[in-house]
Amino acid sequence: MKLAGLKPKHFLWEMKGDVAVIRLDRPDRKNPLTFESYAELRDTFRDMVYADDVKAVVFASNGGNFCSGGDVHDIIGPLLDRDMKGLLDFTRMTGDLVKAMINCKVPIIAATEGICVGAGAMVSLASDVRFAAPDCKTAFLFTRVGLAGCDMGACAMLPRAIGQSRAADLLYTGRAMSAEEGERWGYFTRIVDNDSLFDEALKYATRLADGPNFGHMMTKTMLAQEWSMSLEMAIEAEAQTQAICMQTEDFRRAYEAFVAKEKPAFKGD
Amino acid sequence: MKLAGLKPKHFLWEMKGDVAVIRLDRPDRKNPLTFESYAELRDTFRDMVYADDVKAVVFASNGGNFCSGGDVHDIIGPLLDRDMKGLLDFTRMTGDLVKAMINCKVPIIAATEGICVGAGAMVSLASDVRFAAPDCKTAFLFTRVGLAGCDMGACAMLPRAIGQSRAADLLYTGRAMSAEEGERWGYFTRIVDNDSLFDEALKYATRLADGPNFGHMMTKTMLAQEWSMSLEMAIEAEAQTQAICMQTEDFRRAYEAFVAKEKPAFKGD
Amino acid sequence: MKLAGLKPKHFLWEMKGDVAVIRLDRPDRKNPLTFESYAELRDTFRDMVYADDVKAVVFASNGGNFCSGGDVHDIIGPLLDRDMKGLLDFTRMTGDLVKAMINCKVPIIAATEGICVGAGAMVSLASDVRFAAPDCKTAFLFTRVGLAGCDMGACAMLPRAIGQSRAADLLYTGRAMSAEEGERWGYFTRIVDNDSLFDEALKYATRLADGPNFGHMMTKTMLAQEWSMSLEMAIEAEAQTQAICMQTEDFRRAYEAFVAKEKPAFKGD
Repeated sequence: MKLAGLKPKHFLWEMKGDVAVIRLDRPDRKNPLTFESYAELRDTFRDMVYADDVKAVVFASNGGNFCSGGDVHDIIGPLLDRDMKGLLDFTRMTGDLVKAMINCKVPIIAATEGICVGAGAMVSLASDVRFAAPDCKTAFLFTRVGLAGCDMGACAMLPRAIGQSRAADLLYTGRAMSAEEGERWGYFTRIVDNDSLFDEALKYATRLADGPNFGHMMTKTMLAQEWSMSLEMAIEAEAQTQAICMQTEDFRRAYEAFVAKEKPAFKGD
Repeated sequence: MKLAGLKPKHFLWEMKGDVAVIRLDRPDRKNPLTFESYAELRDTFRDMVYADDVKAVVFASNGGNFCSGGDVHDIIGPLLDRDMKGLLDFTRMTGDLVKAMINCKVPIIAATEGICVGAGAMVSLASDVRFAAPDCKTAFLFTRVGLAGCDMGACAMLPRAIGQSRAADLLYTGRAMSAEEGERWGYFTRIVDNDSLFDEALKYATRLADGPNFGHMMTKTMLAQEWSMSLEMAIEAEAQTQAICMQTEDFRRAYEAFVAKEKPAFKGD
Repeated sequence: MKLAGLKPKHFLWEMKGDVAVIRLDRPDRKNPLTFESYAELRDTFRDMVYADDVKAVVFASNGGNFCSGGDVHDIIGPLLDRDMKGLLDFTRMTGDLVKAMINCKVPIIAATEGICVGAGAMVSLASDVRFAAPDCKTAFLFTRVGLAGCDMGACAMLPRAIGQSRAADLLYTGRAMSAEEGERWGYFTRIVDNDSLFDEALKYATRLADGPNFGHMMTKTMLAQEWSMSLEMAIEAEAQTQAICMQTEDFRRAYEAFVAKEKPAFKGD
């Protein structure tokens, strides 16, 4: 399956080499998510499992902002008229987007500028690595709209990234985390000026896309699963995982390149 | 059930609006815990589940110190004469205090000055958010009295707050963590001068007490439970949690306030 | 069982009081691990469970470097000719070294200088506490040899030490973490000049070896196990653990020393 020619209706899609670049596309309103873009993003990340032409993803900003979250008029208003079945349909769909990102088999780099709030903050958290511009404000602001801080996996994933106390502060208050706080707390891997942010994130993603892709796929899988294993179980799981990786040709290529004092050229098999 | 008129025998209790303020009350000895205060605190936090007039708690200091832990003369001495059943009765009671704090359904803000050690450090760790004065010394000093670093859940909760390595250092050595270290490591949300510490903690607690209370109750519940779920389980759990929260009136109030360009006034239902 | 007279063939072993000092011994090649040293280290840490003369371990550097990981010529080359059973034999042996370190019942202090990469980085991560020289470069470089970042428990243990995001960055890219980064991120407890590094690590290990040893053994056990317990389970587990510790003589010794205003002399029973 190829995704290179994808023409999504509700977000922007572009291939840069083996890296897919995704941007929400309503910059005049700071890129809110809608029922339609949630579903189409979920389906696209699900398809990525079977695609052989996407090796990494950059989830980028647009017009100086990343995402303003679920739109108040387009999403919150209509939800007020739904019954429990309808509400659960919605919250499961948003959770399914996070699950699809975690299970898509390739690394996702979020490059966040300006506003990154609500479900948008969760899209950044569901990515593997995050770069931010200095003006980025990340807010898990669910309590501001009368809800709980637990949305799309926030109470599981945020404490694992920045620790229980800092996560509790952000999730109870809904306040914005600055880029500087995020770097200091381990949320952001790098702060990059707005002008260079996309290029740096793409460079990083391209380096991961260069492989070893089978290895990266396994790294992603195990980083998600091992939190709920005992250490003994995790060590056995990794013994199996790494033995599988040792049967790839990329392992042989790395060895032969080392012996020849060359840089290995990975091919993903 | 109302707790506003509570007259505890072994600690101080005061309502500031919807916020309950708790202080240990033996400032001349830096506020040690006793068999009696452990039990009465446990029972009070258990009652909070059914109380409708307490929306948040500040666990504050008294006379410049937070708590000196289990008293050497009143607790450690008598324990030496107990058999295993009697010892387990005691360690389960102290663990039950932590469980009662985790399960009390409202956010707890610890405001710690001066000495905060042993079981006192565990009371601060069992709180949701921690503010400290610059002079605060927090020590999980169980090894200093010949015991293990695992007491009242320390080996579970401290690594989740500050990471495995820093927790191991503190729990093996029993050394004090300074306020500055605690802030840098994510243990303390804020360092505040002794003069303003209580006011700032109360302001923060009052803001949380203003709601959305049902949402905060769910946030607290899920922050405690999701560490032992897989990510897939956690995302499904939050889909259910947030769907429940979307049926509260506070969700509607937030939407209506947003449309009217007003600040929402939450009521907890 | 005594380990004091141990004469290992594939690494250096020395007792400093109650502290065992281990060093890999191929300084001209920055101390690679071999099939033989993996196995002998695994067996030694397993024996430590039954030894009564080793109270702590310093895993030290040699010739300015800690460990260059699995040797490319001695290990990676031969692995290319193995079938799946043979590969799994190897990855389980390396995992068994980590399990043996986690289960050896005494605290391990890693003192890392210079190069600390691959399986060497995992030996540092499997230790309880880490001191580093300013020149230390720690790299989980498995992707550089065409493999996955999940090796010997890395995807379980590194996120628990430094958080999910920083771990993902290091494990995907295989890049080196500097000593300064490691201290800032909570990986290293202390940075010490190369000249003093070993002495400081030994001093710290000696302090832990002075006891309470039964308590430290329990702390180590529970720090490894409680990540996969719910908080409720962990608190009950610690109630049992600490009740057991309260029946040790060291608990009585600490109390009597306190009453006598002396420093307790622990004996391990």
